[in-house]
Amino acid sequence: MPKRQERALRTRETVLRAAAEVFDEHGYHAASIRLIMDRAQVTQGGMYFHFKSKRDIAEAVVADQQSFVELPSGEDGLQRLIDTSYHLARELQENVLFRASVRLAVEQQEFGGYDATAYDEWADQFHRQLIAARARNELRFGVDEREFATFLMASYSGVQLYSHISTGRRDLMQKVAALWRYLLPAVAREEVITSLRLSPPSLVRADSAV
Amino acid sequence: MPKRQERALRTRETVLRAAAEVFDEHGYHAASIRLIMDRAQVTQGGMYFHFKSKRDIAEAVVADQQSFVELPSGEDGLQRLIDTSYHLARELQENVLFRASVRLAVEQQEFGGYDATAYDEWADQFHRQLIAARARNELRFGVDEREFATFLMASYSGVQLYSHISTGRRDLMQKVAALWRYLLPAVAREEVITSLRLSPPSLVRADSAV
Repeated sequence: MPKRQERALRTRETVLRAAAEVFDEHGYHAASIRLIMDRAQVTQGGMYFHFKSKRDIAEAVVADQQSFVELPSGEDGLQRLIDTSYHLARELQENVLFRASVRLAVEQQEFGGYDATAYDEWADQFHRQLIAARARNELRFGVDEREFATFLMASYSGVQLYSHISTGRRDLMQKVAALWRYLLPAVAREEVITSLRLSPPSLVRADSAV
Repeated sequence: MPKRQERALRTRETVLRAAAEVFDEHGYHAASIRLIMDRAQVTQGGMYFHFKSKRDIAEAVVADQQSFVELPSGEDGLQRLIDTSYHLARELQENVLFRASVRLAVEQQEFGGYDATAYDEWADQFHRQLIAARARNELRFGVDEREFATFLMASYSGVQLYSHISTGRRDLMQKVAALWRYLLPAVAREEVITSLRLSPPSLVRADSAV
């Protein structure tokens, strides 16, 4: 890649990260191009080369949501789906880019957005794991993988939103654990449920230290 | 009640309804005191007697959420809980006060809010039905009524939010029906599930017309 192009990409990433921090702290409306530029330490020219407006930046932060987190490795199927849900919870607690992206996706109507793409991409990820789970004979008869993937994504969104508003996401791991207790009986075969690791990773660590 | 007090209460309600319409159409930030006053057709004096700022009005619209909907009648228990979930879905589609209140509760961080009360009040309502369900022997052994009430509320919030962003809530009834299919097996006794009316009321009407 030519040096100039590389530098341009780096600037874009710098702006996105700075914008995420500013949106995360102040919300969309209290954020300003000026605040973002100061935080990113880029010139006005460098900024406007990539983004024409605050809304442009916010939309990019939402659109790039998938790129802000790496999914945990492992064989596709129900266990990886559960591991992913805890991994995303941890990222929501610690990763400012992902957190800001999710917040803007939730509050997007405040800047005129009406775009479910960021949500649908998670439903697609979950769907992939459910297709694998079906092939491994982990799912109950009659479960519609696409419908459940979409419901899981929507339900998870609500759980993280409520955990955010009520506890600043401090109880998010426990809330995700509850989600699985209430969802699995409808979708996973009984003998599969008993073989799955359902606790949040941090609690597993705490347990094994005893 | 003295006439003057009655009139004041009526003004407050008029302002809240007008504000709900404006917030529903424009969102919090694009709404203005001026827009709300014009819509309500109240004087500046009448307005400021009740509310000092736009944020005051928005907080009142969120705080009064429970008063904007009447719950369906019926004996307390799982059936009434399910009926309530469909009733709220219909209200979200048709009742602008309730809809605006829910939207502001979701986007409250945009005006500095960090208050889970509106969410918790729904969890309390659901909890009441689950306590009754337990007394009627409808719940499975080991279900924690408080934990499930909170999870149901959070999950429902996410389902309505995604339905809002993806279809303008046109598919909300179907989404709520899916929610119950995936939640009931974990909480309701098997013989109870088969005796419950699980379809959305509108679909029931359509069916019975065949």
